[in-house]
Amino acid sequence: MKKQYLKKLMKCPLFKDVDLNKAEHIINSYKLKISDYKTNAVVMLRGEEYKNLLILMEGEISAEIHNINGKTLKIETIKFPDALATAILFAEDNTLPVTIIAHTDLKVISIPKKCIIALCQESKKFLSNLLSDGGNKIAFLAEKIRLFKFNSIKQKIAGYLLNLSNKHKTDKIKLFYTREQLANLFGVERPSLSRIFSELYDNGILKLKNRIIYILDKERLKSLLLEHS
Amino acid sequence: MKKQYLKKLMKCPLFKDVDLNKAEHIINSYKLKISDYKTNAVVMLRGEEYKNLLILMEGEISAEIHNINGKTLKIETIKFPDALATAILFAEDNTLPVTIIAHTDLKVISIPKKCIIALCQESKKFLSNLLSDGGNKIAFLAEKIRLFKFNSIKQKIAGYLLNLSNKHKTDKIKLFYTREQLANLFGVERPSLSRIFSELYDNGILKLKNRIIYILDKERLKSLLLEHS
Repeated sequence: MKKQYLKKLMKCPLFKDVDLNKAEHIINSYKLKISDYKTNAVVMLRGEEYKNLLILMEGEISAEIHNINGKTLKIETIKFPDALATAILFAEDNTLPVTIIAHTDLKVISIPKKCIIALCQESKKFLSNLLSDGGNKIAFLAEKIRLFKFNSIKQKIAGYLLNLSNKHKTDKIKLFYTREQLANLFGVERPSLSRIFSELYDNGILKLKNRIIYILDKERLKSLLLEHS
Repeated sequence: MKKQYLKKLMKCPLFKDVDLNKAEHIINSYKLKISDYKTNAVVMLRGEEYKNLLILMEGEISAEIHNINGKTLKIETIKFPDALATAILFAEDNTLPVTIIAHTDLKVISIPKKCIIALCQESKKFLSNLLSDGGNKIAFLAEKIRLFKFNSIKQKIAGYLLNLSNKHKTDKIKLFYTREQLANLFGVERPSLSRIFSELYDNGILKLKNRIIYILDKERLKSLLLEHS
């Protein structure tokens, strides 16, 4: 593989802190395909077997699904330098649940599953990155499901923060997720999320400083959970 | 480690088809602790760091959580020969979200994370088992979230089967999950699930034979999605 591509590939979070020479040695012993797509091209269809890990080298894709009425729903967008559907590659049902569309012009590298296994066996760092990626996703989805029981965004925020405060026995909550991830976790749009957080700061219930949320008034935060929305 | 324990450990799904001698060699180069607990003993507390993978050698645990009113909620039970909280071991926030209680008398083996990493690097089979386990969990949780939009159990069943039928382009749906897992996926108790499935068989919409569900009347199955519950 050309050095310029290898360097781009190493920007993918799965390759974080992986030794470049070690990765190059393994990658060069497999056939990796680099493909270009024009905007709006179909990269892969829902229902296709996902046997090679796709990593974006340039551009942005959207994962789409057609619902029962034929309407197209955009599930998520994924950008350079991220990998697509890492979990599906290893699931027993390895068929894609979504159709992958080029949202911009793309360059995509396709890494065979065998090469990913070899990278895991040769590089502890790559293995840890891959396992953390899966572990973090499971923790995120499990928390999202737990928060479904709350009705309003305000209750979801309260439920999320009180759970962390209780688990870690502290009123200083380090924000682990980006604002975009938090919006996804609570199932809301970012502007709504920001509005509710501002309200909670203004009311003196929470304070934000350096990506740490301080719970200033725990009793009022708790009382939000009992309100009917 | 005593041969009898090793043989029991090999029954854990993570060790499926792993070479016994290879596993023994790696395991014996780490310090593995085997602990006994009496019924109702606390094995680990919510909020504790999860640094060693616990695998049940005998008995059954329950994962519990105290909600904001101090009420104890049982989240799940895990039995011999399964592993506990595999995902948490590798997540960035590796603190346990639940308290682990001995539901019966227990024997538990504790495997350091480093030993799990070594097993992955030495055994392709162990690595694949661990990655599939994670991939399957993510697919399960993502589908559970997708199904939240449906109101009734009947709609969830219809939504689940139609999605698979559409994805795999067939009206023969191989049941991938056990009845217990399906109940968890739809967020209902097993008897309710069986009742609704029986209704769908009796109405001639579905047929079950050898763990395969045949969609006999797709239009009626689709129309269930539009009903208000």
